[in-house]
Amino acid sequence: MSPKKNPNPGKDKSALPRIGISIGDPGGIGPEVTLKALGQKRGVPAAHYILFGSRFVLEQEKKALGVDLDLRPFAQAGRCREACFSLFEVETPLERRRSRRLGESSGKNGLASFLYFQEAADMARRGELRAIVTAPISKRSWGLAGIQWKGHTEYLAGFYPQAIMAFWSARMKVALYSHHLSLKEAVRRVTRKDLGAFFSVLHRSVEQIRPGHFEFLVAGLNPHAGEDGLLGHEEADEITPAIRLARKKGLKISGPYPPDVVFRKVLDKPNKIAVALYHDQGLIAFKIVAFDSGVNVSLGLPFIRTSPDHGTAFDIAGRGTADAGSMVEAIRLASELSPLPF
Amino acid sequence: MSPKKNPNPGKDKSALPRIGISIGDPGGIGPEVTLKALGQKRGVPAAHYILFGSRFVLEQEKKALGVDLDLRPFAQAGRCREACFSLFEVETPLERRRSRRLGESSGKNGLASFLYFQEAADMARRGELRAIVTAPISKRSWGLAGIQWKGHTEYLAGFYPQAIMAFWSARMKVALYSHHLSLKEAVRRVTRKDLGAFFSVLHRSVEQIRPGHFEFLVAGLNPHAGEDGLLGHEEADEITPAIRLARKKGLKISGPYPPDVVFRKVLDKPNKIAVALYHDQGLIAFKIVAFDSGVNVSLGLPFIRTSPDHGTAFDIAGRGTADAGSMVEAIRLASELSPLPF
Repeated sequence: MSPKKNPNPGKDKSALPRIGISIGDPGGIGPEVTLKALGQKRGVPAAHYILFGSRFVLEQEKKALGVDLDLRPFAQAGRCREACFSLFEVETPLERRRSRRLGESSGKNGLASFLYFQEAADMARRGELRAIVTAPISKRSWGLAGIQWKGHTEYLAGFYPQAIMAFWSARMKVALYSHHLSLKEAVRRVTRKDLGAFFSVLHRSVEQIRPGHFEFLVAGLNPHAGEDGLLGHEEADEITPAIRLARKKGLKISGPYPPDVVFRKVLDKPNKIAVALYHDQGLIAFKIVAFDSGVNVSLGLPFIRTSPDHGTAFDIAGRGTADAGSMVEAIRLASELSPLPF
Repeated sequence: MSPKKNPNPGKDKSALPRIGISIGDPGGIGPEVTLKALGQKRGVPAAHYILFGSRFVLEQEKKALGVDLDLRPFAQAGRCREACFSLFEVETPLERRRSRRLGESSGKNGLASFLYFQEAADMARRGELRAIVTAPISKRSWGLAGIQWKGHTEYLAGFYPQAIMAFWSARMKVALYSHHLSLKEAVRRVTRKDLGAFFSVLHRSVEQIRPGHFEFLVAGLNPHAGEDGLLGHEEADEITPAIRLARKKGLKISGPYPPDVVFRKVLDKPNKIAVALYHDQGLIAFKIVAFDSGVNVSLGLPFIRTSPDHGTAFDIAGRGTADAGSMVEAIRLASELSPLPF
């Protein structure tokens, strides 16, 4: 399925960066927000945007939304020296009948959205994309299709086990030490060894984005960051030693801070990233501050991956009313954070 | 030390409600924010405010701040039919030298602030105050003075073990199921039996404030509220059964909601209270939304107790620059929430 074009895209320095976009579940708002985001051309940085999806889905949406966007076939796109858009058409079971089920989970839509994403991820893994943006898929539809991965993140973690889930907005940046674990298990995973490894990957990852720019503020695990051991010992036993060692290695990192204070400390400080030790510690803060404009960013990969901070929104799919704000941000950020100039 | 005045204050219906205010650590900003809050008389509801403190401390502050406030001795105050202020002078080791140490923890200041608070709490426990407002004390100073309690809440919990720590602001209200526990221990404490008892006390407490008005939205413990058991089983085993039982008993309560969603759901909904299952779950959300204007409220007591959402701020004590916003809110709220009309 891969046409193996442009095997060595690093050669042509004048070409615009290539950013892949998987259009997400065809029954959700992914195709709609993708087209809306790219349609407002001034809203996204100049790049060669390669959409991974089904042409008939995108043509239906373009017509319904009245979006004018020239999507030439990827194989004919060549190198872009000004903003351009192409479509890497992915063969899926949907093509046969040129129809899709809107507004609900379905195995066919699930398989299609997985194949779109897999093609984009494959091209990025081969070093041919600077970043990928993934529109929302339905975990339930992936399940119905028999896909073994729970989502984008889990698929990428198979290739890049050190991948880090982070959340980025104009007002706040948060990196999660752990994510999809029960709280009990998340508490158990707070060990100085694993924290140390995490800090190193995080550091290397943001150094590629903008060397010397970012610093990390680490949350404690317990109320008041343990209050000198009165309210828990993980700060003294695990977190503080890991931070100390990371500082010795030259990382700009501090903490542990009381969890109900650290997110205020990074608020509106563009170079400060809060490190949350478990899913909700970070996401409670982030979703209050950046409910409509947040972007999910995967760090620790050889490319950048971003996705909008919302789901398939089956309830409003096909109505043309979806807000593309988070998708615009995801695309903007994919460009801004891309580490490798090619 | 108790002059035992007004043994049956419920008799005189025309008298204004009596609200006690302990002025906090004499070395911190407590006396300053108390006087500033009461000095802007339009900012606080009409009541008989009884300050618990040392006269010389308040006179020093009044002079420094240029606040004009007539503080007659409590014993001579009688019943107020218009807003009035009196001082219940508490004897402390500070009186002998009429001096206090500013801007640092000290055993003498610690003992003084404990005695102020104890007198106020005693009067409230006797049913002679509708509410108490507690200006900030220093836990370290209490420790230096050999006080066995860690703070206001712990002292009150000795008399009222079912006391509930809640946080109140114009935009968000949060009640904490547990507070000063390690996260590991907080996870262990999530049992359907204890949750059920907590919901009952919380319900009775807010029904006294405004019958039929409030409803509760309970957070899950795990990411995505457990995602059907994939990310933890406490929701299915403990939380959902406790909520179901409470609903059967007629409480307006729902959940468990994903922890990173529930606080958005109560935001700007004045009749909705989020129930957080552990300290930081609630306080991360609350402190982002209401950093400067939040009020700490104790529920489940026979009187209301509020306190401003900041500490002694030793670093700015004595400068006259402290912001009294949170103290004004604490006083306003003590009046608004007071359950017993006397």
